[in-house]
Amino acid sequence: MNTPAPMLVMSMGDPCGIGPELICRIWQEHQSLIGPWCVVGHPAAMARAAIAIGASHITIECVDTVAEAADLWQSRVSQREAQALIVVSIEPDTELPQWGQISPVAGRLSALSVEVAAKACLNAEAAALVTAPIHKQALSMAGWKVPGHTELLQQLSVQHMGVQPDALPVRMMLATPDLRTVLHSIHVSLRDALDAITPASLLETLRITQDHLPSPKPERPLRVAVAGVNPHAGEGGLFGSEEALVLQPTIAEARSRGWDVSGPHAPDTVFMRARSGDFDVVIAMYHDQGLIPIKYLGLDEGVNVTLGLPFVRTSPDHGTAFDLAGRGWAKPQSMLQAAIWARAAVERRETIA
Amino acid sequence: MNTPAPMLVMSMGDPCGIGPELICRIWQEHQSLIGPWCVVGHPAAMARAAIAIGASHITIECVDTVAEAADLWQSRVSQREAQALIVVSIEPDTELPQWGQISPVAGRLSALSVEVAAKACLNAEAAALVTAPIHKQALSMAGWKVPGHTELLQQLSVQHMGVQPDALPVRMMLATPDLRTVLHSIHVSLRDALDAITPASLLETLRITQDHLPSPKPERPLRVAVAGVNPHAGEGGLFGSEEALVLQPTIAEARSRGWDVSGPHAPDTVFMRARSGDFDVVIAMYHDQGLIPIKYLGLDEGVNVTLGLPFVRTSPDHGTAFDLAGRGWAKPQSMLQAAIWARAAVERRETIA
Repeated sequence: MNTPAPMLVMSMGDPCGIGPELICRIWQEHQSLIGPWCVVGHPAAMARAAIAIGASHITIECVDTVAEAADLWQSRVSQREAQALIVVSIEPDTELPQWGQISPVAGRLSALSVEVAAKACLNAEAAALVTAPIHKQALSMAGWKVPGHTELLQQLSVQHMGVQPDALPVRMMLATPDLRTVLHSIHVSLRDALDAITPASLLETLRITQDHLPSPKPERPLRVAVAGVNPHAGEGGLFGSEEALVLQPTIAEARSRGWDVSGPHAPDTVFMRARSGDFDVVIAMYHDQGLIPIKYLGLDEGVNVTLGLPFVRTSPDHGTAFDLAGRGWAKPQSMLQAAIWARAAVERRETIA
Repeated sequence: MNTPAPMLVMSMGDPCGIGPELICRIWQEHQSLIGPWCVVGHPAAMARAAIAIGASHITIECVDTVAEAADLWQSRVSQREAQALIVVSIEPDTELPQWGQISPVAGRLSALSVEVAAKACLNAEAAALVTAPIHKQALSMAGWKVPGHTELLQQLSVQHMGVQPDALPVRMMLATPDLRTVLHSIHVSLRDALDAITPASLLETLRITQDHLPSPKPERPLRVAVAGVNPHAGEGGLFGSEEALVLQPTIAEARSRGWDVSGPHAPDTVFMRARSGDFDVVIAMYHDQGLIPIKYLGLDEGVNVTLGLPFVRTSPDHGTAFDLAGRGWAKPQSMLQAAIWARAAVERRETIA
């Protein structure tokens, strides 16, 4: 008997946002693309979402743990039973708030979904986590004071591993079919982002990228481009000193380790050049430098990947869209691409191991 | 007899770069799109470029001033003569350096071309200037210590007008068929760009945009979006203070003047939203914020427009491309779009006047 493919878990996101209906749509239309998977969430939220997309025929089978979900999936494959969406149940007796409402109840359910799903990954019951969007304010109302998923997942991981947060630095990567970019910093002011560009932290960004992002062509190394900080990458020192003082020596250090790293490149053309095939990934020096080109062509297919965690984690490139939630109009492409990316990453890891 | 359409002048750019051949290609393939026009440049450089694009049949007619060029064009229209490219001749006896060479001779010829063309505009002999690319280092070797065209044209204009530089603030706008963005600052470090975001200077940027960029739909005002400085436009003060301290009050002041200005918008989605039609122009807070999305889809059709000068001035969105020069491969689209934009802007001014 073959070893079963590892499980992928989706956290449902804020139950009053578009997360649950995106998941139902993937179940209805694209479930075969991503191998064995289950949802961690609130059963009634998932049932409500199925109705919202006009798919009330979707049945839901509740279990208590991701390990049970994996057993159930496996037994189905052998018995060829009719399939129901498997939901690892979170507080099924809690009453749901209305669609589009920012509430502590929804914040609590979304945080617990992420925590249960992440712990399953940390305990090797699942190999990858795809998170549907949560709402920071709802999370905060429920007592979870974190800026977002990335920080929450890092916290859970360091607690599980019994290490200090510094021992597990993570970076956010954004990917579209055209472009991949790793953000050196994320949710800080632009002035603080400039201060965060140091030789040690930039080398860490390059190391995390090198360790966690495989080359798209196994016959050659990953081609990493470092974007400059200043216009024209500083124009030989005329506009700013970060390139000469930090970027150039750090890139030299990375190259001395055998990594294929180039730059600093002029920020205004490096993303265009990566899109046309010159590089596999661009290291963006701050949040908007990388996100402006990622989002420029639309939000439909962007995937957010957290590099550096002990498991694969992806998410769509959009938020809860409370104004759209419950209408059945939300497009699942970004969430689907996130799941496809996660499955591919898991398969690469299996192949390597 | 009708008043003749006003003249458009092109400065040839660095004679060892791709400027002259782009101009010859426009003459050969698209001359009818832009009304009466002439080149200010070196006759042998233009003849060499015609040969480079395989168009040695292009004849060149030299004159001494733009006023003469206008008379010549007008006489042709009435006499329906066979047409030659009209070149206002700059130092015709100077020997040309090789293609692709950075040299003081080429720098001098390119600077003089710009100066003669700009003075013709300032003296109302021409209505618009389209500049082919120059090379900053060649310019500097020839004794012109300016970062680029914009600064040189501002200098020439304030000298002509007899005012202080502060009295004639200008801004760079970039336009593609999909997106227009005005840059609040250009060739300074990112740290200096942050310091340059003050209520007075931002109001000046908004005023220049309002005065010099007409609404694409005359039945409604120009819809201006101001991009934030920090991620998520500061997320309510969590990441940086520029939005609350500078952007919000300045936008309120602009709105109180009756201008349709909105923001500050999240920088990572405002350009995507403008591209999809939500706004007519985005005010970018620094060089790369605006140029990354402008250049992301390629450099073929971008146009650079200087707002605030006493005449219309446009240029292509690329450089001298010394590595391509003389081969006849360089694509004229961006230079052509710059000329088409200039002609349309002149026609709008005529209509208003």
